[in-house]
Amino acid sequence: MTTTAGPGRPRLTEPRRPGQTAREEILDAAAELFTEKGYAATSTRAIAESVGIRQASLYHHFSTKHEILDALLADTVRAPQQFAERLAEHDGPATELLYTLMLFDAVHLSSGRWNLGALYLLPVIRSADFAGFRARRTELMDAYRALALRALDELKVPQDWAAPREALAGLPFRLVESVINERSDNMAGAHAPLHPPRLFADTAIRMLGYQGSVDALYETAQRLTAAITEDAGIPVAVEA
Amino acid sequence: MTTTAGPGRPRLTEPRRPGQTAREEILDAAAELFTEKGYAATSTRAIAESVGIRQASLYHHFSTKHEILDALLADTVRAPQQFAERLAEHDGPATELLYTLMLFDAVHLSSGRWNLGALYLLPVIRSADFAGFRARRTELMDAYRALALRALDELKVPQDWAAPREALAGLPFRLVESVINERSDNMAGAHAPLHPPRLFADTAIRMLGYQGSVDALYETAQRLTAAITEDAGIPVAVEA
Repeated sequence: MTTTAGPGRPRLTEPRRPGQTAREEILDAAAELFTEKGYAATSTRAIAESVGIRQASLYHHFSTKHEILDALLADTVRAPQQFAERLAEHDGPATELLYTLMLFDAVHLSSGRWNLGALYLLPVIRSADFAGFRARRTELMDAYRALALRALDELKVPQDWAAPREALAGLPFRLVESVINERSDNMAGAHAPLHPPRLFADTAIRMLGYQGSVDALYETAQRLTAAITEDAGIPVAVEA
Repeated sequence: MTTTAGPGRPRLTEPRRPGQTAREEILDAAAELFTEKGYAATSTRAIAESVGIRQASLYHHFSTKHEILDALLADTVRAPQQFAERLAEHDGPATELLYTLMLFDAVHLSSGRWNLGALYLLPVIRSADFAGFRARRTELMDAYRALALRALDELKVPQDWAAPREALAGLPFRLVESVINERSDNMAGAHAPLHPPRLFADTAIRMLGYQGSVDALYETAQRLTAAITEDAGIPVAVEA
């Protein structure tokens, strides 16, 4: 059963989904259907029905299914990428900055209601429609890599630790991203994360050769995160 | 254009795809279409056309699209899972055994013509049809975890290295699996791996606290791999 509310007109039913606006409700419904049923298997009609609005009302907010997917994907990288930009303005050891970025990103990936990162591997993401999303994600990867290379210098990692260095510097991003795979493999509990986000930051900094206390890094990261997010108004997910 | 060759009858055209048998050609075509166009977007008819056989001939080998996907996924875990079973019969430090498993698995994930691991995140994998595949993959994850826990004991990793220990022991599998994400993000070259497989094994053993020479581990792993694969007839991918 769908409602008869059209664009602009007040909704006749109570909202069924979290979200302040119809747009947010549409995004939540699409996120659920894309991750639970699959992207190709989900029609815009099914999304509208799941929100409790007419398909015409949905088109008022998004003209295509690609546009909905793009909006969802943008949300997954916007906050960490903005955070990385702010972080680059801070002084301090790269080891601390990288750890702080990894912790922020791991919390962000862990906290979404739906496991949207699972959509990164869809073939459609490689099409021109998603060039903007890919560019932003590449910026985030590059921010990780630049900090990792500086951290490797600071940590005086021996030559044979894991060569080549440039390749090793790409792996912290990969380990943090594996939050997505853990969530996807968790068959129970709506794909909740299996482990606290800091596990990924703790382990990624170890693989670059950090031998000190991860508790000390964690405390520094919390202070730095609070300073950056308050300053820039970046939405910060609450760590469970 | 399709050929008129039916089940059992000789093919009228030259095979278009790698594979000794029609079954292998079907699997290769499906692997390409599933990873390049998407699973839901690919019909059995499109697979048959891509092989150059009739749809009826395809149904001679596979009764459903799920069955084709299941056969493809089974191939991605069978060899590493069998290898892990053989490895468990060998004596020696767990650090060496785990490294050997990671190297074998990373080579395996890097060497497939299509990046089939990208299909692990499809929602359909969570359905009952794929319970067998999921069970086998879980066995492989468990083999990783058991060796990682033993390696952590051997390496005398300090308490605060990255707690909890049980969670840390799950991450070597995740790092090796990120070969899939690297391939997926490589827009050029048909999703070829960006880095040599040993990078993942080298880095994963470091994150468990190994401080010795990875070159020494690599040599040991090559000897052990040769012994196990010759013995058991497990197909071993050639490292690039």
